[in-house]
Amino acid sequence: MNDIKSILNRVKCGALSVDDALLLLKKAPYEDIGYAKVDLHRRVVQGASEVIYGAGKTPEQITGIIDTMRKNGQKTILITRLSAGTAKKINAVCPLRYYETARIGITGEIPEPDGIGKIVVATGGTSDIPVAEEAALTAEFFGNEVTRLYDVGVSGLHRLLSHAEEIMSASVIIAAAGMEGALASVIGGLADCPVIAVPTSVGYGAGFGGISALLSMLNSCASGVGVVNIDNGFGAAVLASRINHMEAKA
Amino acid sequence: MNDIKSILNRVKCGALSVDDALLLLKKAPYEDIGYAKVDLHRRVVQGASEVIYGAGKTPEQITGIIDTMRKNGQKTILITRLSAGTAKKINAVCPLRYYETARIGITGEIPEPDGIGKIVVATGGTSDIPVAEEAALTAEFFGNEVTRLYDVGVSGLHRLLSHAEEIMSASVIIAAAGMEGALASVIGGLADCPVIAVPTSVGYGAGFGGISALLSMLNSCASGVGVVNIDNGFGAAVLASRINHMEAKA
Amino acid sequence: MNDIKSILNRVKCGALSVDDALLLLKKAPYEDIGYAKVDLHRRVVQGASEVIYGAGKTPEQITGIIDTMRKNGQKTILITRLSAGTAKKINAVCPLRYYETARIGITGEIPEPDGIGKIVVATGGTSDIPVAEEAALTAEFFGNEVTRLYDVGVSGLHRLLSHAEEIMSASVIIAAAGMEGALASVIGGLADCPVIAVPTSVGYGAGFGGISALLSMLNSCASGVGVVNIDNGFGAAVLASRINHMEAKA
Amino acid sequence: MNDIKSILNRVKCGALSVDDALLLLKKAPYEDIGYAKVDLHRRVVQGASEVIYGAGKTPEQITGIIDTMRKNGQKTILITRLSAGTAKKINAVCPLRYYETARIGITGEIPEPDGIGKIVVATGGTSDIPVAEEAALTAEFFGNEVTRLYDVGVSGLHRLLSHAEEIMSASVIIAAAGMEGALASVIGGLADCPVIAVPTSVGYGAGFGGISALLSMLNSCASGVGVVNIDNGFGAAVLASRINHMEAKA
Amino acid sequence: MNDIKSILNRVKCGALSVDDALLLLKKAPYEDIGYAKVDLHRRVVQGASEVIYGAGKTPEQITGIIDTMRKNGQKTILITRLSAGTAKKINAVCPLRYYETARIGITGEIPEPDGIGKIVVATGGTSDIPVAEEAALTAEFFGNEVTRLYDVGVSGLHRLLSHAEEIMSASVIIAAAGMEGALASVIGGLADCPVIAVPTSVGYGAGFGGISALLSMLNSCASGVGVVNIDNGFGAAVLASRINHMEAKA
Amino acid sequence: MNDIKSILNRVKCGALSVDDALLLLKKAPYEDIGYAKVDLHRRVVQGASEVIYGAGKTPEQITGIIDTMRKNGQKTILITRLSAGTAKKINAVCPLRYYETARIGITGEIPEPDGIGKIVVATGGTSDIPVAEEAALTAEFFGNEVTRLYDVGVSGLHRLLSHAEEIMSASVIIAAAGMEGALASVIGGLADCPVIAVPTSVGYGAGFGGISALLSMLNSCASGVGVVNIDNGFGAAVLASRINHMEAKA
Amino acid sequence: MNDIKSILNRVKCGALSVDDALLLLKKAPYEDIGYAKVDLHRRVVQGASEVIYGAGKTPEQITGIIDTMRKNGQKTILITRLSAGTAKKINAVCPLRYYETARIGITGEIPEPDGIGKIVVATGGTSDIPVAEEAALTAEFFGNEVTRLYDVGVSGLHRLLSHAEEIMSASVIIAAAGMEGALASVIGGLADCPVIAVPTSVGYGAGFGGISALLSMLNSCASGVGVVNIDNGFGAAVLASRINHMEAKA
Amino acid sequence: MNDIKSILNRVKCGALSVDDALLLLKKAPYEDIGYAKVDLHRRVVQGASEVIYGAGKTPEQITGIIDTMRKNGQKTILITRLSAGTAKKINAVCPLRYYETARIGITGEIPEPDGIGKIVVATGGTSDIPVAEEAALTAEFFGNEVTRLYDVGVSGLHRLLSHAEEIMSASVIIAAAGMEGALASVIGGLADCPVIAVPTSVGYGAGFGGISALLSMLNSCASGVGVVNIDNGFGAAVLASRINHMEAKA
Repeated sequence: MNDIKSILNRVKCGALSVDDALLLLKKAPYEDIGYAKVDLHRRVVQGASEVIYGAGKTPEQITGIIDTMRKNGQKTILITRLSAGTAKKINAVCPLRYYETARIGITGEIPEPDGIGKIVVATGGTSDIPVAEEAALTAEFFGNEVTRLYDVGVSGLHRLLSHAEEIMSASVIIAAAGMEGALASVIGGLADCPVIAVPTSVGYGAGFGGISALLSMLNSCASGVGVVNIDNGFGAAVLASRINHMEAKA
Repeated sequence: MNDIKSILNRVKCGALSVDDALLLLKKAPYEDIGYAKVDLHRRVVQGASEVIYGAGKTPEQITGIIDTMRKNGQKTILITRLSAGTAKKINAVCPLRYYETARIGITGEIPEPDGIGKIVVATGGTSDIPVAEEAALTAEFFGNEVTRLYDVGVSGLHRLLSHAEEIMSASVIIAAAGMEGALASVIGGLADCPVIAVPTSVGYGAGFGGISALLSMLNSCASGVGVVNIDNGFGAAVLASRINHMEAKA
Repeated sequence: MNDIKSILNRVKCGALSVDDALLLLKKAPYEDIGYAKVDLHRRVVQGASEVIYGAGKTPEQITGIIDTMRKNGQKTILITRLSAGTAKKINAVCPLRYYETARIGITGEIPEPDGIGKIVVATGGTSDIPVAEEAALTAEFFGNEVTRLYDVGVSGLHRLLSHAEEIMSASVIIAAAGMEGALASVIGGLADCPVIAVPTSVGYGAGFGGISALLSMLNSCASGVGVVNIDNGFGAAVLASRINHMEAKA
Repeated sequence: MNDIKSILNRVKCGALSVDDALLLLKKAPYEDIGYAKVDLHRRVVQGASEVIYGAGKTPEQITGIIDTMRKNGQKTILITRLSAGTAKKINAVCPLRYYETARIGITGEIPEPDGIGKIVVATGGTSDIPVAEEAALTAEFFGNEVTRLYDVGVSGLHRLLSHAEEIMSASVIIAAAGMEGALASVIGGLADCPVIAVPTSVGYGAGFGGISALLSMLNSCASGVGVVNIDNGFGAAVLASRINHMEAKA
Repeated sequence: MNDIKSILNRVKCGALSVDDALLLLKKAPYEDIGYAKVDLHRRVVQGASEVIYGAGKTPEQITGIIDTMRKNGQKTILITRLSAGTAKKINAVCPLRYYETARIGITGEIPEPDGIGKIVVATGGTSDIPVAEEAALTAEFFGNEVTRLYDVGVSGLHRLLSHAEEIMSASVIIAAAGMEGALASVIGGLADCPVIAVPTSVGYGAGFGGISALLSMLNSCASGVGVVNIDNGFGAAVLASRINHMEAKA
Repeated sequence: MNDIKSILNRVKCGALSVDDALLLLKKAPYEDIGYAKVDLHRRVVQGASEVIYGAGKTPEQITGIIDTMRKNGQKTILITRLSAGTAKKINAVCPLRYYETARIGITGEIPEPDGIGKIVVATGGTSDIPVAEEAALTAEFFGNEVTRLYDVGVSGLHRLLSHAEEIMSASVIIAAAGMEGALASVIGGLADCPVIAVPTSVGYGAGFGGISALLSMLNSCASGVGVVNIDNGFGAAVLASRINHMEAKA
Repeated sequence: MNDIKSILNRVKCGALSVDDALLLLKKAPYEDIGYAKVDLHRRVVQGASEVIYGAGKTPEQITGIIDTMRKNGQKTILITRLSAGTAKKINAVCPLRYYETARIGITGEIPEPDGIGKIVVATGGTSDIPVAEEAALTAEFFGNEVTRLYDVGVSGLHRLLSHAEEIMSASVIIAAAGMEGALASVIGGLADCPVIAVPTSVGYGAGFGGISALLSMLNSCASGVGVVNIDNGFGAAVLASRINHMEAKA
Repeated sequence: MNDIKSILNRVKCGALSVDDALLLLKKAPYEDIGYAKVDLHRRVVQGASEVIYGAGKTPEQITGIIDTMRKNGQKTILITRLSAGTAKKINAVCPLRYYETARIGITGEIPEPDGIGKIVVATGGTSDIPVAEEAALTAEFFGNEVTRLYDVGVSGLHRLLSHAEEIMSASVIIAAAGMEGALASVIGGLADCPVIAVPTSVGYGAGFGGISALLSMLNSCASGVGVVNIDNGFGAAVLASRINHMEAKA
């Protein structure tokens, strides 16, 4: 809102004509590169501008977006849902580190963790690890310390309970599970911090590609659990990172 | 099959005419009282002939079925899905004990338990108790010792774990839960006996009247879990009782 | 875990017999009043022990639970999903303040807000207010300052935008909306804080009792949005309150 | 109806026998080429006779239909859902312009726009562009001026608002969006013209191939929004074109 | 946008202080009466400000909204989804005409029709008439001439065909049908004007409260059909009215 | 088609003016009584004109339709989905026989059976009888001999097999069943005649109001089974009657 | 049943021992060839024994079944859901005619039609033809004369009406349609014979692979329509053939 | 629980320090090999530790898990959902027997049956055999005698009835069926032992990949039927084996 005030002040003192002011008030805060509106101001607002959703984009398109971002000062860039093949082609032009399990590519340095505490990323089984890694790497990318607790599903409760200390000392927990998705409820019952539940499409038959886990998590008898879309490790991590970077506003 | 052999033998020795034999082979093994075929031979086959499904039947119809059963030697009769009002009207004519929570009426003496071991009936919350009581009373009716573990849902795991001994020593466990239905998975992971999961229609919103719990239970990551219909405490108990009365056949 | 250590220490020094220690390790940390396990230790773990889920409980049951809670030192108690009729009957025995729109009853004093910042509760229309009020009162009950922004749905975007300042300065936002549930996406795009989306069952036809809004929110193109069950204002507030009380752990 | 009258008049005056009249009344107004009934009279009735639905048709079949249409005077022909491979094969025999993103082929000249005003085609993201292009090209084919507003989804509201002028001056707006489909509601709230919403199958998980967007659009809190099938850019454009060519009838 | 320019001009010439200008730019264009934001400027934008959605509002709330509207110059007001009981109570304070079948109340005079042509409202059966009447009255309220064609479902095709002239001469057609919803397709095939399809919740069993009709209409093989929510006669009429009032914009 | 020829002939010979012929060709073959188009010619076409769908109609409306039918020569009239209360009110004005279980009212004499053979109506349980009776009475109304085989569900296979002779000698079988709907498959496997399957809404939980039975019947592993809507005993009987009255056409 | 009588008679007269009789009564009336039970007696009962469901069977398995059938006197054999590749391999060993569109293979001569009348097979569009051809060829295989009416969907009603004579003179009609499936209702309204509706999986988006058409057909406002599974042309033809071969039974 | 007691005793007598005891109480009873937690203690608890879920695991991962298991004394190991290709690669390093139909690999000797009685595995058709073989081999692996009854679906009831003796003498029956899944109900009606129903994904159209069979089985009118997930032959066998190894506990 200060920007508007500053524009108005400049109009008042004659430093800005009415028409130019009108233009400024309407001018879109982004640069258009034809196939995508690269949203350079979004970082301030959303904290997500450094991110490229890779699915369905060609290597050329992704390279183009990276270039535009860099020209505008972005150094560290995260590309999600990136296939190994596309990553390889981008890498030839514009070097990046590729994390195959997570299907994530990163350019530039991941920042030092600066959050309130640690984010625990837990999975029910080994098949949930790709989604969990998408979440873990995204969280690290946004400046969080991450503890991974994989394959601690509720059918072998002692495995989960042997990690009670990590769970109790987490600032935020991301629980990724497919099949019946009970992990979120059990962790939600053990922990006193916010829990982000990520249903995964792991399973078969009446698992319905993650719907069973999704419904379980939405109906969790534990309070304090928020749910994101099936397989949406990225979204879970953005939410967890915002929580882990909470601070008082004036 | 012995019956067929006996009929054939009697035909062979002339004690039975061919037409009478034909008739016997086709004769329906039940007595028709107009509005319901009372299945008197079913006990041998199904072990469920003493049961009347009360929903949608008038007091007069139920009393009539009870009469027919008694004339054929049935003394102990279980009536399920019986409203308090209907129970009261039947009681005036034909005394029965009514269990309001379970919506069950019983005439005659419940037999001494003669199963292999104990059946544990567990629930996630207090709202699941009506379904659990339907299961527990049905199991007792069929000669099983029953241990009730109510309100031991997974959001307070210590409550469940404090009953680990009962769970470990059960012969069969019936786990009734609504909402996310995680109880079945957690118990399935703790126990080494057959687990019968009963989804209940407890919950709201995306619980979809028990569908969420049903899907969870079908997708349980614990093996050895069989699922019955939503709110079907009776069916769970019949299956549990059959398991608890297993014996070698020649 | 300290408790276990203390038990072990007492065993070591002979202050506790092995069998008594075994008993202590298994002893359930709750008091059983027959129809419900009042979970007195849960407060420490879950921060939700002062809450009674009122749906399906009789006035007598609720009064009984309140009594047990009070004997154990709980002074402020929240009862959700409480009908006006039940509230009136409880009030005769045990005075409470009843909030009809939210269907919430509260005994004792609501604490001073002690969270990091403010929680904004926004709704799309006037019909979503009951769910929003459940969330708002619950959040206040758990020590949060709450700003209400009701009837700011996206079909009249200027209404929402006129509150941009409240949205930008919130610590957590709860967005409750039925019908197409677009409010969560638009707020998620405007805000840089965690957003908890609550689909409501408001609408008709292809709204399917909140499913349309639920799916919209899960598929939100804005990152940083966590979703709870349909009409679950309470759960949204518990999660928001935990976020608003984040602090570093050792 | 005039045709019937003319037939009757000719019967009356003996210019036509009763049997021939009967035949004429029943004669199908189309030419049958074996594998498809080319509907030559449909243009008058439907304004869509120049269109071939390409999905599942062989290059030979499509070429055959084009030939028949041309023999009957059709010059400009639109082929939808046409793969690049099939287009190439047709082009060898019968030259056409192929629009790869839209998967559309066109033979002959696109007419000058003659509608009431402009049709705006807007999308939420870049992945919705193929559906939007199918709509835009179809609209142009039917004589409409089209303004494209792509990647203006609601998670970055300023991008959409910076185009408020185009939206306010449109005659009809086609809003294509996947994921949560909120674009239709927000545009529906800003505009005062008819809005045609096209859900796209863009998204994953609980997007369910466009169902989430479809439900959102059907439940839009903005009035004046009509919805077509998932990914049906063509249908949206036909409807928009009819609206943009409205005129008084006698 | 002119308003912004005028504000800027006044700032420039000193007629308006910067802070006042800032306030004006943010000032919400509505009057808040506590339980609902009466959107007085919306008429210009949406053409729907004179409408009150009556469902779930008390007589007192509706009367209050009417008062506020009238004070701001609104004379003709439409109240939808209004029960007979509520209408009666409102009528005692503030006279209105109540249309029971349509569940609509209207205060003030319905304007003379001023649209391009006629709107035909057709139904498949007699049970669809309430939805159709909601549409027809709403259309008349917004200044359209309406022709009603009720009970012309496709199972008796001659009934529909006998009205071919009305169908061919319509400017817009609203087709309301439940069960299998085929009416929209058949009319869509006969007509060359925009068709708005309204699925109704009429039917039983696998009609699923209108879902069967909704899917039929979305999948209509006739082009040029837009669909609204189940039973949403009002929304169909708003869209039809906008189409019937199309005019060129500068 | 003969009618058209006759009209043409009369035009030819001058017995009919062109305009009158045009009128006749368009004149709707029904009489309009305001709230319903009584379809008097439909009998010839559909064989169902004597039927009134009673659901949602007032006693006055039904009486009015009966009157119109009678004036046009209809003597025997079937009213389906008729509540006992409405039947009683109609009976006071216009005597009818009311069948409470089937919720059917009939005026006039049911005709002698004149079909090819017998129609067997079978049900799985006693709760399916209302739907079966709707089918049985409708079939009798249309001139068929009906054999009722009720409560012969597959869980007691001997009950069904004891009626093998009736099943083998049927011309058409209507199989009505709820729950898992297996009756249709088993009968379909035993019989060599057409089988019409009617899913009923009997059951609970995952029966989903008849969907489970509907899906079972559609997926029947027995060939030669046609399915109608849930609880649609009437429709099953109309189809069965048409089959039982098959005859060669010129 | 005569067989049982004959066995009994032979037991009576000593021509058969009791144990042999017991064996005979139980002996399975089929020959087991390891991977499939070829059901040789089924022809009498079901009229479908000459049919092989080809999906998922290897060429060797199908050839083996054909051999077994032939050894038992079957000459004409129908193989459904047969891929071109498999057909080719079978043809090398055991000549058959392959119908690619219908994916059907036939060995031996198709019999002369001997049904009551003609079966009309109609489709809504050209994409429905494969399902229709499966039905048409199956019907011919079972001795029926078939009239094909393809591409007569309701969006061009005149195409359908121009075939009114074929429709009126059919003995049974099979209506195959995808998308909104309205064809069944319109034909059901025109015809007075039994109509078998086959939903096809043709369409996209909210067609949901045939569900939309399936629901439409189940909810048809025309009586006398029976529905089979999606794409089940074979099943429709078996049912239609049974109807077309109806005859009186003693 | 004895372990805890032993730890406490050692603490008491000074043989174990408090901190070491604390560690022991928390030490996870499994060995971590990086990509999977091999659960060596699980055998005692679950009787399933010898099982590897092969889907989605590489040959190297499976070989690694086998090695770890063997080092810990496991000799007989079952690998489910194993593709032929993966099996071949494992076999080169670590010999196993591969059962292609069941997609199961086994290393080591299958034990002698030691259950109470026989487990019958029945299927409706030949396409259900893969699921049935997964169940049969798993049951044999866990020490059960298995009788296979394949292709005994209800559309040819005599085939099923000819095996009545096997059914009557089974200890547990596993019924695997797709399409309408009626097999479970019919077997459930014939047998007096526990029945485990496995819906298979066999079928097409409205079979919805096993949902139709799943719903049928959940709604079975026969009591004593427990259901597992679609295609979950393994889970059915684990449950059946537990039932067949029931014994009294102290």
